Amino acid sequence: MEQGTYPGGRTADATHEIKRPSVPALDSLLGHSFPILDHGFIRVIDYMGDEAAVVQAARVSYGAGTKAVSEDRGLLRYLMRHRHSTPFEMCEIKLHVKLPIFVARQWIRHRTANVNEASARYSILAREFYVPDAADLAPQSTTNKQGRAGGYSENDQKLLQHILTQMAGDAFDGYESLIEEKGYNLSRELARIVTPMSTYTEWYWKVDLHNLMHFLSLRADPHAQKEIRVYAEVILDLLKAWVPNIAEAFDDYRLGAHTFSLQEMAVLRDYFSQYLDDGGTGEHSMPVQALKDAGASKREIDDFLKALWVNP
Amino acid sequence: MEQGTYPGGRTADATHEIKRPSVPALDSLLGHSFPILDHGFIRVIDYMGDEAAVVQAARVSYGAGTKAVSEDRGLLRYLMRHRHSTPFEMCEIKLHVKLPIFVARQWIRHRTANVNEASARYSILAREFYVPDAADLAPQSTTNKQGRAGGYSENDQKLLQHILTQMAGDAFDGYESLIEEKGYNLSRELARIVTPMSTYTEWYWKVDLHNLMHFLSLRADPHAQKEIRVYAEVILDLLKAWVPNIAEAFDDYRLGAHTFSLQEMAVLRDYFSQYLDDGGTGEHSMPVQALKDAGASKREIDDFLKALWVNP
Amino acid sequence: MEQGTYPGGRTADATHEIKRPSVPALDSLLGHSFPILDHGFIRVIDYMGDEAAVVQAARVSYGAGTKAVSEDRGLLRYLMRHRHSTPFEMCEIKLHVKLPIFVARQWIRHRTANVNEASARYSILAREFYVPDAADLAPQSTTNKQGRAGGYSENDQKLLQHILTQMAGDAFDGYESLIEEKGYNLSRELARIVTPMSTYTEWYWKVDLHNLMHFLSLRADPHAQKEIRVYAEVILDLLKAWVPNIAEAFDDYRLGAHTFSLQEMAVLRDYFSQYLDDGGTGEHSMPVQALKDAGASKREIDDFLKALWVNP
Amino acid sequence: MEQGTYPGGRTADATHEIKRPSVPALDSLLGHSFPILDHGFIRVIDYMGDEAAVVQAARVSYGAGTKAVSEDRGLLRYLMRHRHSTPFEMCEIKLHVKLPIFVARQWIRHRTANVNEASARYSILAREFYVPDAADLAPQSTTNKQGRAGGYSENDQKLLQHILTQMAGDAFDGYESLIEEKGYNLSRELARIVTPMSTYTEWYWKVDLHNLMHFLSLRADPHAQKEIRVYAEVILDLLKAWVPNIAEAFDDYRLGAHTFSLQEMAVLRDYFSQYLDDGGTGEHSMPVQALKDAGASKREIDDFLKALWVNP
Repeated sequence: MEQGTYPGGRTADATHEIKRPSVPALDSLLGHSFPILDHGFIRVIDYMGDEAAVVQAARVSYGAGTKAVSEDRGLLRYLMRHRHSTPFEMCEIKLHVKLPIFVARQWIRHRTANVNEASARYSILAREFYVPDAADLAPQSTTNKQGRAGGYSENDQKLLQHILTQMAGDAFDGYESLIEEKGYNLSRELARIVTPMSTYTEWYWKVDLHNLMHFLSLRADPHAQKEIRVYAEVILDLLKAWVPNIAEAFDDYRLGAHTFSLQEMAVLRDYFSQYLDDGGTGEHSMPVQALKDAGASKREIDDFLKALWVNP
Repeated sequence: MEQGTYPGGRTADATHEIKRPSVPALDSLLGHSFPILDHGFIRVIDYMGDEAAVVQAARVSYGAGTKAVSEDRGLLRYLMRHRHSTPFEMCEIKLHVKLPIFVARQWIRHRTANVNEASARYSILAREFYVPDAADLAPQSTTNKQGRAGGYSENDQKLLQHILTQMAGDAFDGYESLIEEKGYNLSRELARIVTPMSTYTEWYWKVDLHNLMHFLSLRADPHAQKEIRVYAEVILDLLKAWVPNIAEAFDDYRLGAHTFSLQEMAVLRDYFSQYLDDGGTGEHSMPVQALKDAGASKREIDDFLKALWVNP
Repeated sequence: MEQGTYPGGRTADATHEIKRPSVPALDSLLGHSFPILDHGFIRVIDYMGDEAAVVQAARVSYGAGTKAVSEDRGLLRYLMRHRHSTPFEMCEIKLHVKLPIFVARQWIRHRTANVNEASARYSILAREFYVPDAADLAPQSTTNKQGRAGGYSENDQKLLQHILTQMAGDAFDGYESLIEEKGYNLSRELARIVTPMSTYTEWYWKVDLHNLMHFLSLRADPHAQKEIRVYAEVILDLLKAWVPNIAEAFDDYRLGAHTFSLQEMAVLRDYFSQYLDDGGTGEHSMPVQALKDAGASKREIDDFLKALWVNP
Repeated sequence: MEQGTYPGGRTADATHEIKRPSVPALDSLLGHSFPILDHGFIRVIDYMGDEAAVVQAARVSYGAGTKAVSEDRGLLRYLMRHRHSTPFEMCEIKLHVKLPIFVARQWIRHRTANVNEASARYSILAREFYVPDAADLAPQSTTNKQGRAGGYSENDQKLLQHILTQMAGDAFDGYESLIEEKGYNLSRELARIVTPMSTYTEWYWKVDLHNLMHFLSLRADPHAQKEIRVYAEVILDLLKAWVPNIAEAFDDYRLGAHTFSLQEMAVLRDYFSQYLDDGGTGEHSMPVQALKDAGASKREIDDFLKALWVNP
């Protein structure tokens, strides 16, 4: 570029010309629509940055200090292990998502993201609502107050699907008759209040990589409601295409990691100091009494032992 | 307090002992429930800071520079006029709000706030849903794609209220039968998908004063949907009890203010230079041709003239 | 792409294949270094989105409602005029900036951005510090407590530049001798405390378009310190290359706009109702008494009249 | 309160009258100044909420689901263990802090907080700068690129303190002569650029409890620079006065907790399955080969074993 043709007639040093980083594996997926649930989808619309952008940001921060970590993969894993978050914020992804409103209400609680959602004040809602697959229908869990457990007979599955379809259909019949221009022509912003929480909406959702991984750590978790987890799982796959080493480190140091409390660490250390001392000839139970003394619940102690595959 | 009794055995200088700022006019309202719509409410649960806290923050930032503004009311108005936002962030308020879910979905778009909402994954939804007052029922506006306009006959009002009540009632009948423990006992996180957008939810919402005013500037606006505006109006009244001078300045410099574009300002200045020059003997129409030339739409020009109560 | 080669072995609908939006005018500037002050610069490293991305986000939100605004430029101007912020958040830009630390301290107050800054705990600071141009040296303003006004004789300019250079040089002499490995080898995190606020630092700064414009509205303002304003001015030029219609609308509806208070609007309306009524035969002064009555300061009233080029 | 005396002439239900939650242990500390470093301090100015406010927010979210956790302390520990963050956001604290600028620059990177800082554009800087205690002076660490290690002879300590004091004193001599009204009267916004990074500043800093704990988890960490860690340690003590059960849970599940990676957990489980199986008669070394195979660095493996007090 000729000097003088810069914006504002400015001059600039053109010796550092660069191109936008791009990731061919993700480029080839742009715009493709991954189906989720019965009417939902996720499409990658755009993204910014790649693994090198994270490395670049880390190296400007830590300067010569990062030379010890000689290669990029190692640095990325180091950043993940030590929960350095700002370098991951240098990447950004924008998704087009179609999802039921009750899922959208969980999703939107992640505040550090940008969203533009379809508005039913302006537009007429399409007759699209979520009906669970037969296999996803399950009774209220008795152990987990927020979950489902068990299943239904094939007959009950069909009946439940029928009921859910019928109810949503009735609601949309009502909605459509309320907004009928030659009928009541009720304003859209009011008519929409009869539509069910299963109604599909769509939005553009843009988020940086750090906050995306935070979202995934909560929503790809087995405790997340299945209907949002299936979205998180698609995004996990997209993450692998976009930033494979980061996705692997995220798996190793976040999703697959386990955190032990101060008291649990003391028990573990106590175990190793005792049992390595005596050549392992003593009893091999874990000395969890200290956890009980510290007020840990039975469930917390069970979780501790399960994490280690140890019986009490 | 005796030295040595401080946390961690620390010493401290106790000569600056202070009390928490409090606002008696707001204290007397704490916990009182202001009814909104048919089942909603707002209650102030807690707050932090008063007008003096805003002044204090401004004075630490601007130091001696603020001495020129000799009194607090003037300083608060100065901060509002010049859109200084950080001093207003020093105050915080926490509300308990009950509101229909379609309102909650608009509200939650304000990201800079803290929220804890009731979850229908855990708890069974109460049979409470919004049915508009007869006078609030209105057909789709033909000029405003997102609004309502006009009204209905008394008979139609009754019919519409009947339909809306019936539909929500049917949905709750279905919901309640689905979760019936001796029936399908469908998990709560699934059963809730049949409930309508008019269903009431509740949450604790905590926000700083700057972001609260941003919320109010959008949601107390005539373009906001009436069902959220009525909440904003209650909060405006609470604002007056809490920080009366700030509430007044907010009214004067934000809610009641008007912004003219670069082109509109040029037209206004052109008007004044011409018409003051000729002693007002010329024509008294506003020279809006410049706006047309700059590509302003008819509506934009109308808005300009209406703001000044001037006919084209 | 063949089905089955998608991440996670997923299938997808490939009929909506898209490419990343790009802006050739900005692409040709990527990496070019725009010099600012004596050692600073701004380089665009990456960006995401273009004007079509803003339009796309607005249209998903407002749906059919935006059809009335038939063309994109009009829609972008509409969004700016009505302070719709979320569609602008769909674009993102990443800059590499070198700047003095006292400027960085103002800049970082914009919290809605991502930053990775060089750390003097890890790296040795280069001997680079800001010395103002002769013309930028100015005494303390007597009217503006936070500004400068007037100038110096050529001789004083030289003396002041000499003093500023000498002082920073002395500080760096000290810094370098403290960290000298064969000398005290003082830890970098301590030695840096002797370096002056004029020392240059650098960072990657990533921000969305909405927050970038908020930054610019404050930092390109004449009240901003000149040393940060020159950075804002370069970014304004980059904005024009990136999103020219948005940059124009930003100029028209934000930078060049003027906001009148509730009381000022009343005075304006009063003026027009009186003076248009009487055919302009009365006196042509603006009836500012109402402003005085409402407690406006002399300065506020002057600002009002100056905005209109009207004498009191 | 009589009906009709409510703001806006509203009516309200006064049966739920409440008082602001308060914490006597923190009330008695309000305004007291805890000295830090040579001229710094922290003072609690105001706060909002207590442990019951966190419990209240959690119970509205999880409803009946939280009845299983019968008492508040258990619920608070549950929330901390499972990293539920939003209930902790219901509490807020405001501190007045005086700190050196190089510390302020680290501190301000925590973006989710409200800050009003003294401005040297408006006010003249006091002649206050940080000089480390003799015992805190240390050479550059050879193992930790960002840290200090070892110490100096008493003589060198004195010399270094003398140099640091002299250099900052020289800078302030220069600063004061530049702003001298009868001298150059250089504008404050320019003169300040000669002051050193050790100069003290002060601010009001307001943050919610969740983000405060995030701040503490990073800044009370042994890897944080000592000069910011001493501030974090005072805040930790204040936390204990304010929310003692939360502070304890924070210690147990965050500060004192240890996270093992996916691979490390596999090694631990492998250990327990093998060595419990054979009655502990085999070798008692930890089978870390799997970590090596997965690419873990020597340092990562050492960290793993050290966490368990096990020798390789």
